[in-house]
Amino acid sequence: MRPNTLPTNHAPEAPAPSRLESFSDGVIAVIITIMVLEFKLPPEPGPRAFITHVIPTLAVYLLSFTYTGIYWINHHHLVNRLKRVDAPILYANLLLLFCLSLLPFATSYVLSEKFNSFSVAVYAGELFLSGLGFVVLSAAVTRHFHRTGTANPVNLATQKAEGRKGFLSLALYALAMPLAYWHPSIAAANIVLGTGLWIVPGFMLPVSRHSESAD
Amino acid sequence: MRPNTLPTNHAPEAPAPSRLESFSDGVIAVIITIMVLEFKLPPEPGPRAFITHVIPTLAVYLLSFTYTGIYWINHHHLVNRLKRVDAPILYANLLLLFCLSLLPFATSYVLSEKFNSFSVAVYAGELFLSGLGFVVLSAAVTRHFHRTGTANPVNLATQKAEGRKGFLSLALYALAMPLAYWHPSIAAANIVLGTGLWIVPGFMLPVSRHSESAD
Amino acid sequence: MRPNTLPTNHAPEAPAPSRLESFSDGVIAVIITIMVLEFKLPPEPGPRAFITHVIPTLAVYLLSFTYTGIYWINHHHLVNRLKRVDAPILYANLLLLFCLSLLPFATSYVLSEKFNSFSVAVYAGELFLSGLGFVVLSAAVTRHFHRTGTANPVNLATQKAEGRKGFLSLALYALAMPLAYWHPSIAAANIVLGTGLWIVPGFMLPVSRHSESAD
Amino acid sequence: MRPNTLPTNHAPEAPAPSRLESFSDGVIAVIITIMVLEFKLPPEPGPRAFITHVIPTLAVYLLSFTYTGIYWINHHHLVNRLKRVDAPILYANLLLLFCLSLLPFATSYVLSEKFNSFSVAVYAGELFLSGLGFVVLSAAVTRHFHRTGTANPVNLATQKAEGRKGFLSLALYALAMPLAYWHPSIAAANIVLGTGLWIVPGFMLPVSRHSESAD
Repeated sequence: MRPNTLPTNHAPEAPAPSRLESFSDGVIAVIITIMVLEFKLPPEPGPRAFITHVIPTLAVYLLSFTYTGIYWINHHHLVNRLKRVDAPILYANLLLLFCLSLLPFATSYVLSEKFNSFSVAVYAGELFLSGLGFVVLSAAVTRHFHRTGTANPVNLATQKAEGRKGFLSLALYALAMPLAYWHPSIAAANIVLGTGLWIVPGFMLPVSRHSESAD
Repeated sequence: MRPNTLPTNHAPEAPAPSRLESFSDGVIAVIITIMVLEFKLPPEPGPRAFITHVIPTLAVYLLSFTYTGIYWINHHHLVNRLKRVDAPILYANLLLLFCLSLLPFATSYVLSEKFNSFSVAVYAGELFLSGLGFVVLSAAVTRHFHRTGTANPVNLATQKAEGRKGFLSLALYALAMPLAYWHPSIAAANIVLGTGLWIVPGFMLPVSRHSESAD
Repeated sequence: MRPNTLPTNHAPEAPAPSRLESFSDGVIAVIITIMVLEFKLPPEPGPRAFITHVIPTLAVYLLSFTYTGIYWINHHHLVNRLKRVDAPILYANLLLLFCLSLLPFATSYVLSEKFNSFSVAVYAGELFLSGLGFVVLSAAVTRHFHRTGTANPVNLATQKAEGRKGFLSLALYALAMPLAYWHPSIAAANIVLGTGLWIVPGFMLPVSRHSESAD
Repeated sequence: MRPNTLPTNHAPEAPAPSRLESFSDGVIAVIITIMVLEFKLPPEPGPRAFITHVIPTLAVYLLSFTYTGIYWINHHHLVNRLKRVDAPILYANLLLLFCLSLLPFATSYVLSEKFNSFSVAVYAGELFLSGLGFVVLSAAVTRHFHRTGTANPVNLATQKAEGRKGFLSLALYALAMPLAYWHPSIAAANIVLGTGLWIVPGFMLPVSRHSESAD
């Protein structure tokens, strides 16, 4: 992985993103699978008990898995633009992982409360937090490009467009919180829209659509 | 891991499969070990209580571990053919991981229900889902080879043969679902056969048997 | 990752730190997320029950996550200085991981005991242990530099300064244990100070501040 | 990680051990930390309840952590000799991981049974199984060296010596099972001896002691 000889300059180089990636992968792997532990055997045999007790948990798990998966894919594309990482990027990444790790709980909560106004507002709040974590990480990446002089025009344009996409999501999630008290299903539509923007990683990012998704 | 200099073309390259691998490894590592948490100390000391309470859980765990291990090995060989990944491959991989993560629960269920018809059908259904996830991922890999012009004859032949093997498994699992209502043990034979095809990664794949397994 | 040809000298080389990194990342990923399992749905619906039951667990989780995150970042910088690892480094690393894995429990304990003297002393003791684990690992790294002749002046100076920082933390934590019986909040101030030294990885390390943090 | 150009021979190369390593690291990371979940808050405050309820769990955890850590280090050195992996190696590795994952449970069992004869025999049996898994993996590695013509004299000598060490451990564990019915503490001495052989990875391996441990 690293050459056995000493580098010509004696100072150790800033770390490559490989460890940020493997740590994030480990944390997200635990987050994405931890809800499997919630699956309990139904109290009685037969299809009826199976459907009543297993299907709702399965739906919650699928929702949480999908959401976390979308974040993982976008994290993957964001970090792939980096050659080196610095401390602000590492801390912003920890912030994002912290926010994401609350998602399984928020998903359980909104479903156990049967989508009442407060629980939908809590769920929108958690999505707002995770979105904020991503925007902060993306800003730390942009700052790194500028400070190290490694900013090429394509990466900067991608970062700028991704920032706009991030703020649009944040606005949709923030709006969903008061809307949950007016009508939860309109808030839910906001939430779905705010997340749907991120399903295709290159959506709204004209340049990288060519180079990243269609490659 | 990555060179410090800017690439000559400014657009970031499509990501290498290293992160898909490390994320999948993390998720499968959690899936494969999560059933250890189900091991409970027997309620009383001595060999009898040990055998009655520990051995059945151990059998379930061994079954689930083996099945997940076979999937990991075949996933390993499939991803090893790739140089780059795109968004459809990442999503197909998430789908496969989701399906696989339900396996420990399905295994517990079929054993707690003592192999009655419905539970065997549920188990076959879960194997059908996981098999479908693998076929979808394999199709995304083939599509990637064609779109990027990186398809060499050996890889394409391997993919095609693996696709046939996948559909054969799916047919066996699909057949097992109605058969479970006729006679569970015949359904179980279908299931064992459908999975047994995958124990040797190169089985039914004439070319790669030389290059992958016997290397 | 490794070339297919045999190396010119027949003895296998000492391992690169890549596996130490990926194993540590896996263990720390489990440690940092394991407290999510402590989140329980509140016993009744509505904001009041949410605030009473969820917010304290959230605070504990945030504290434990932050602390573990700071360790991960400093571990990252320490291991980044290495080209090869030896058995003492591997064992010192296991010791550090063991100490860190007790942190979620110690955090739960100090909060469930409402910061009484004994629990604060236990918490300071756990931080002392983790700090000791880090100092031992750092010493194993310095010893490795000397034994293999791979010590360059910059790395040695960084190691020496990091050692001083480590001993300062240890002194603060050790002092916090008896202070907890005099006044817990003064002990808590010691703890915060001892940990705060490590937030910026390059703090008190004049050379690497340039090359690591500001890169 | 992999070059973008096609290799000159069209067949995909046998996979490098990087994924075997990262998967094993993930599984062992979960195994080694899973016992943290067993830590329960003591039922009442104060030092007495802390010592009565926490210290025994801590001792069990430390024992299981140490044992798993020793296996991880030896696994690390074994896999470091490999350039490529084949299917038998992957399956032997899964077998070893399965055996290791039963260790936390066996450790809990022997302590909850207060070291009575049967529980010590169960514990020795689990260590025998894990040792067998390691010997099988080591044999798969030796077979791979012979079949691929990548066997150099140093690696073969190391493998042979490691095999002898493995069989010595197995004999000690096997002997511990009947001895547990005669006198548990003599069986325990056998167990400690059989494991102690592996603390220094290069012990009884004359060549690699130079190149691996003292590097």
